[in-house]
Amino acid sequence: MNHKMIVYLTAQIIRAVGILMFLPAFVGMIYQEWTDFFIFVGTGVGMILLGTAFTLKKPENNAVYAREGMCVVACAWIVISFLGALPYVMTGNIPSLADAFFETASGLTTTGSTILDDIEAVSRSCLFWRAFTHFIGGMGVLVFMLAVLPQSDTRTMHLVRAESAGPTAGKLVAKMSHSVRILYAIYITLTVAEMILLLIGGMPLYDAITTAFSTAGTGGFSCKAGSIADYNSVYVEMIVTLFMMLFSVNFSLYFLIVSKKWKQALANEELHVFLEICAISILLISFDITKVYGSFLTALRYASFQVLTIISTAGFASANYIDWSYFSQAILMILMFVGGCAGSTGGGLKVMRIMVLVKSALKEIRCTLNPRSVVVVKVDGRAMDKEVVHGIGYYFIVFIMIMVISILLLALDGHDVPTTVTAVITCMNNVGPGLSEIDPSHSFSCFSSWAKILLSMDMLLGRLEIYPMLVLLTLRKR
Amino acid sequence: MNHKMIVYLTAQIIRAVGILMFLPAFVGMIYQEWTDFFIFVGTGVGMILLGTAFTLKKPENNAVYAREGMCVVACAWIVISFLGALPYVMTGNIPSLADAFFETASGLTTTGSTILDDIEAVSRSCLFWRAFTHFIGGMGVLVFMLAVLPQSDTRTMHLVRAESAGPTAGKLVAKMSHSVRILYAIYITLTVAEMILLLIGGMPLYDAITTAFSTAGTGGFSCKAGSIADYNSVYVEMIVTLFMMLFSVNFSLYFLIVSKKWKQALANEELHVFLEICAISILLISFDITKVYGSFLTALRYASFQVLTIISTAGFASANYIDWSYFSQAILMILMFVGGCAGSTGGGLKVMRIMVLVKSALKEIRCTLNPRSVVVVKVDGRAMDKEVVHGIGYYFIVFIMIMVISILLLALDGHDVPTTVTAVITCMNNVGPGLSEIDPSHSFSCFSSWAKILLSMDMLLGRLEIYPMLVLLTLRKR
Repeated sequence: MNHKMIVYLTAQIIRAVGILMFLPAFVGMIYQEWTDFFIFVGTGVGMILLGTAFTLKKPENNAVYAREGMCVVACAWIVISFLGALPYVMTGNIPSLADAFFETASGLTTTGSTILDDIEAVSRSCLFWRAFTHFIGGMGVLVFMLAVLPQSDTRTMHLVRAESAGPTAGKLVAKMSHSVRILYAIYITLTVAEMILLLIGGMPLYDAITTAFSTAGTGGFSCKAGSIADYNSVYVEMIVTLFMMLFSVNFSLYFLIVSKKWKQALANEELHVFLEICAISILLISFDITKVYGSFLTALRYASFQVLTIISTAGFASANYIDWSYFSQAILMILMFVGGCAGSTGGGLKVMRIMVLVKSALKEIRCTLNPRSVVVVKVDGRAMDKEVVHGIGYYFIVFIMIMVISILLLALDGHDVPTTVTAVITCMNNVGPGLSEIDPSHSFSCFSSWAKILLSMDMLLGRLEIYPMLVLLTLRKR
Repeated sequence: MNHKMIVYLTAQIIRAVGILMFLPAFVGMIYQEWTDFFIFVGTGVGMILLGTAFTLKKPENNAVYAREGMCVVACAWIVISFLGALPYVMTGNIPSLADAFFETASGLTTTGSTILDDIEAVSRSCLFWRAFTHFIGGMGVLVFMLAVLPQSDTRTMHLVRAESAGPTAGKLVAKMSHSVRILYAIYITLTVAEMILLLIGGMPLYDAITTAFSTAGTGGFSCKAGSIADYNSVYVEMIVTLFMMLFSVNFSLYFLIVSKKWKQALANEELHVFLEICAISILLISFDITKVYGSFLTALRYASFQVLTIISTAGFASANYIDWSYFSQAILMILMFVGGCAGSTGGGLKVMRIMVLVKSALKEIRCTLNPRSVVVVKVDGRAMDKEVVHGIGYYFIVFIMIMVISILLLALDGHDVPTTVTAVITCMNNVGPGLSEIDPSHSFSCFSSWAKILLSMDMLLGRLEIYPMLVLLTLRKR
């Protein structure tokens, strides 16, 4: 393991995020929050100095393989969650370090669970930083750095593989560093598009920027106490719903569309399955909650927003689903595990994995019932590599095991069963709200400090797809 | 598919169970419950006639392979659950057919969930039949028939494989039919031993017999409203705890012990893991609930009984764990999935599967973190066949999927989240009680009729390990 290179790359990331701190500082200047301004500038300068100190001398052996890639990703995310939490503590907006760490991890991992009971009491610059962490984390801290700094191509590949969501990280063009820049361009274009559409709808500039950031990362932090419901506007809800859907789609499809390969993009099997799941869930819930809202159209409005906000793992709120029937709640709980498509900013297990799991389970059933039949798992019409299919199966098993252990540990904190179970589910899938004590109208402030750290780790495990975090545990072994 | 042979074998099973109906009839005679006596005799005679009618002509092609084996098992269990329910309905003890079907399926699958709110109002012969279904289902309806009737050896093997619990059905001796008889001899010996020990403790004969039947099948039906707690005897609790443990161990180990292969039996890895899980769970819960009961010894008493009753999937009650902390409840919930050892009468996923799942997940983690390392899954010091390991992985995935679908459907019945989720978990793992509305002091009577049928199907899916039930869905295909 190349330890020097891990420190070097982590330091580069710290420096990059340090530079980004000037953005909330700028917001502080506009709103004349001078304490916040100085704290963000100070933290930013400190991070730049810290990062520069460790990047002065580039290691001679600059080889980076899969293990190093995973290790850099895990280290960087934990360190950034910690350093990014400092402004909250120093400005006094979130006095407890455990709370601030939870909030930053929740932001970066685009979970969107909050410990804040009174969101609107928080300073404008901190609320901006909070939404901005979603934007940084959505596409990945490393991917951002790679898009900015020149790196060798194999190194880039291992780093992107370790940070990207989904079972496979595809190249768009021959050079990985070019691919990364194209992905970022798509990401920013979509975010700006949403911002403009929200402005057209009459939303204030500050709200439009933060909402667009939160949607882009499929995070869910809002600068309003009542989330999107506070705007009380069908137009805003529709725009946010649309963009939650757009950000849950594999970004490589947008590249295909830009390259005028329309047919190939629209034939994508994962996209079809994703849209089908959304459509079926929206219809089922709409019929089910029509009795709550009186009219089918109102039900359809709330159901589409809620289904998209859960499956994209954004976790905004336009209505409290606690008032809905248990059947609708059960559908939403299952959607939490599904998440967005691979290669999107959505969390969860990803539609691709669910597809492969269902297909390989059906294949196994068929083979057990007819031992002579030979069946392969096909995606997009092509047979999938057996090792990849088994890998996805084991990913699911490891995911469930970590979930069970987390639930057992969290049970020590003494909350009721729905709270404990859904807290772990919502954090590991990077969704945001849960049931009972942590429903959309409540916060995670009910948990004790150690429980918040545990849930933060669950968020990081979910966002980084487990293995990078586990690599840290085996560091000393060689 | 050999349809004629499936009908022939199912009819043989109906006839065999018809004969067994004379036992509750005999109990009815002793307690002078004459209506019950005539109904049990009538049902028994009816089943014998029905069975005989379809077994008059033996099919010329008497080949039975894996598919036929699974199909016979699934058909037989559903038909027996239905026919076995008739006495409850006709005697008026359980007037609704859906309720009676649930109760019989719960008995045969050794789940032990009940819809009876007032157990002690039920007639003695029906309570006897209820406990007796546990005894019949514990070892298997087919295994019983095979032990009695002469069959060809390959046919026996396919039938036993389809009905036995656990990933592998081992032969004890060269001939399968001999193995089956040895297993039954062990089963009966242990049951009689428990009965005698309970009698020594001063339990009435009727109670001793029914309790021994319920423990043997690891079912959990009791003839007392308060289950084992009603005897208020530490001795009785200890005996039942001991035998729940003995019935959760792979029966082939007893054969090894009888054959004086002590060392081989005691070196069994699954046995060690099972005992370790029990010991750790008992200690954790004992420390946790000491504050509830005041003394550690009392806590230890309740904890050991509860851990064994849940991991063996018997589901007796000596205390209501609803009063315990959520941490202890979480441990019990996880133990529900573990279940007994393979080749025992315990339900759940089986210790063997959990062992292999954990080992293969750890192997996968190691291989992902160190792509060059080659690791194999070993059990009892021998490398396990890759196909068997993958098969166990997929079994788990299919199990979880059916669980998710069942929870979604059951949510339509409108019960709170803990009730809905634990109802499915407890039924699929054949445990018995759950949380909230179905805790040990409540019954399943709160569910509507269709929900009871759904849960009955979950019990059968769990007991028969999914595939035999699924084979029924593909019957028409060829």
